[in-house]
Amino acid sequence: MSIQPLLEYIRKHIDLSSQEESILASKVVLRKYLKGQYIVQQGDVCQYECFVLSGCTKTFYVDEEGQEHIVMFSIEDWWTSDMGSFITQTPADFNIQCLENTELVLFPYNEIESLYKEIPKLERFFRQIIERAFVTSQKRLVRSFSLSAKEQYLHFREQYPQIEQRIPQYMVASYLGITKEFLSKIKNQLIYKH
Amino acid sequence: MSIQPLLEYIRKHIDLSSQEESILASKVVLRKYLKGQYIVQQGDVCQYECFVLSGCTKTFYVDEEGQEHIVMFSIEDWWTSDMGSFITQTPADFNIQCLENTELVLFPYNEIESLYKEIPKLERFFRQIIERAFVTSQKRLVRSFSLSAKEQYLHFREQYPQIEQRIPQYMVASYLGITKEFLSKIKNQLIYKH
Repeated sequence: MSIQPLLEYIRKHIDLSSQEESILASKVVLRKYLKGQYIVQQGDVCQYECFVLSGCTKTFYVDEEGQEHIVMFSIEDWWTSDMGSFITQTPADFNIQCLENTELVLFPYNEIESLYKEIPKLERFFRQIIERAFVTSQKRLVRSFSLSAKEQYLHFREQYPQIEQRIPQYMVASYLGITKEFLSKIKNQLIYKH
Repeated sequence: MSIQPLLEYIRKHIDLSSQEESILASKVVLRKYLKGQYIVQQGDVCQYECFVLSGCTKTFYVDEEGQEHIVMFSIEDWWTSDMGSFITQTPADFNIQCLENTELVLFPYNEIESLYKEIPKLERFFRQIIERAFVTSQKRLVRSFSLSAKEQYLHFREQYPQIEQRIPQYMVASYLGITKEFLSKIKNQLIYKH
């Protein structure tokens, strides 16, 4: 396990000196999670912003009826966190669970301020990452109230091209807010059209 | 019209020297819009991040059936922009229209990079603002699939305490994704309960 993929990812946004890369490496934590383990659970305080080196996670919310709602998946080179909980250090709204054995780079809350101080360029980097996350979230909101289930499914396949083979169908359905029977009907219609 | 409210707002996050405040003042644009005017229209490229000095705006999306979906409102001390369009300089998904005469501080796209260069602390400021916007957007997504219409309405009143008196009821209904008849039923139920 190495933070190289993270450094390559960061280089697309900002230039870090080798000294800055060493500082970064000294502040983050590399960690393996097993399939099924939780990175954060609803009600706990989220301690990390996480960069995915390998594996796959789902971020979901369980409502009062026990119904699970999947907000996002994260795979290699994506980020995951309960941002609201992380920045305010209050209980998380979301669970983040590993759907495969997953390797992460964790940015601990109690290190992130000193990281910003020692490498101010990281403010820029995280600003840009969060701008994109915000845009993705807004677009998902728009899709949820303006696209049909079939259109949303097609968009899902486009947004997460590799992911459908890696996760159970009922999770795709939960992400789309439909039953797995309805998802299966949509997929059959699409096969029939080809 | 003065940028004082913006400077006070910024001071809650970062300290600017008076020289930095002058640089900021030289890069932003103060502008009045009339009720009904658009700050950005779906399909245009969004040129500004906007801070609301006074007035009220709605951000909405019109789908292919001509149906309007309201994503957010902005009032005094809030921000508004089509962030996806702004950061990528590609056509906007959203319309932002003034619901009252509205005074804004505009951060033009072609000035923002030089602002970040001259006042690097602004990276921090905008990172924090966007983190909060992202969290708000995620929470709205969760509410949209886990709360009843009545619960969403109660949350709306809590989130925007002053706004309900300022905008037509059908817009509140559009924001909640329900008909205005259904909203009116919910409100009657709530009155009846008191």
